[in-house]
Amino acid sequence: MLERQGNLFVVSGPSGAGKGSIIKQLIKQRPEIWVSVSATSREPRQDEVEAVSYFFKSKDEFRRLIDQRAFLEWAEVFCNYYGTLRQPVLDALKQGTNVILEIDIQGALQIKQMYDEAIFVFILPPSLDELEKRIKNRGSETEESLALRLKTALEEISYIEKYDYFIINDDLAESTRKLDAIITAENAKVARDVIEMLDSADKGFMLG
Amino acid sequence: MLERQGNLFVVSGPSGAGKGSIIKQLIKQRPEIWVSVSATSREPRQDEVEAVSYFFKSKDEFRRLIDQRAFLEWAEVFCNYYGTLRQPVLDALKQGTNVILEIDIQGALQIKQMYDEAIFVFILPPSLDELEKRIKNRGSETEESLALRLKTALEEISYIEKYDYFIINDDLAESTRKLDAIITAENAKVARDVIEMLDSADKGFMLG
Repeated sequence: MLERQGNLFVVSGPSGAGKGSIIKQLIKQRPEIWVSVSATSREPRQDEVEAVSYFFKSKDEFRRLIDQRAFLEWAEVFCNYYGTLRQPVLDALKQGTNVILEIDIQGALQIKQMYDEAIFVFILPPSLDELEKRIKNRGSETEESLALRLKTALEEISYIEKYDYFIINDDLAESTRKLDAIITAENAKVARDVIEMLDSADKGFMLG
Repeated sequence: MLERQGNLFVVSGPSGAGKGSIIKQLIKQRPEIWVSVSATSREPRQDEVEAVSYFFKSKDEFRRLIDQRAFLEWAEVFCNYYGTLRQPVLDALKQGTNVILEIDIQGALQIKQMYDEAIFVFILPPSLDELEKRIKNRGSETEESLALRLKTALEEISYIEKYDYFIINDDLAESTRKLDAIITAENAKVARDVIEMLDSADKGFMLG
């Protein structure tokens, strides 16, 4: 029986590219994949649930966890902390569970330094025009903040060379199929554990 | 519009592992994938069709092609030559077609030297007992040749470390799904062409 560690998939890309929709669609089809839950120091909104929406922490608690190096990545955004706790992710991987992290590009680059076995997937919008449309559709953007978001998106896209895979998100079903395929393929990679298992096995080896 | 070169997938593994069945199943679902046709110097059998079953060549012709380095890989088996012509494969790849080569492990190792961008997939039987059963079911094996085949299979499996991916073929549909996923994932890899395309693109880049 071949027991393998799970893989960590870091899914990121500019905001508006559609990361969240792809992941939501994927786990409908593959509920055995675990989507990591972030920690945050901001106040919970009314419909948010502890450990489902976020792990909610006070600012002091969050800072203590930073000092303890408890995060795979973290950032301060508008005076609040956001981050990914290391232990729940590593526990899941150890149990053979595949884990998805949906994070921004700065967070992804931190993960690359902390856990370079992770697999990095970049979600691209079909075009900048389309990206503009999607951000506008979310509403709540002034002309100025829209321009800033687009400029940031262009800068962020230049980080694609740090990633292993890219998905141009012009069709949700097709993009979901691609992310699914990336996860299946990565789990079929020949790695040290497979080679050791076959080396130690004699005539009666069992793989199934 | 993003035009990419096709990928070359080398599918091999011990005889009896089920390479052929998986590939046949896959191209039913993805007829756009091109399965390379081998050249051989042996006589065509009655039901065999030129350029579909094999490219049939005389021994002299085959030797001339070897001298001209026209093969990606070739071997002499029981006084006949078998090989993969380089040009049809490279032409298909250039046109953006994904190509599958179904070959034995010796051939795969030759390809690794000639074209190291190829992607190597190793098909494993679920167990040696199962492999024995499958080889027996093909009939035409004496006890002696069966023992030799099994010994060869065990030796061949040790080459798995040269491969990128492995598939344990205990279920044809599942194995086909995995090979499909490997091809999809490899086509989503971030490679130089993607980075260049994005670098050269300005605000109005179109990816779709």
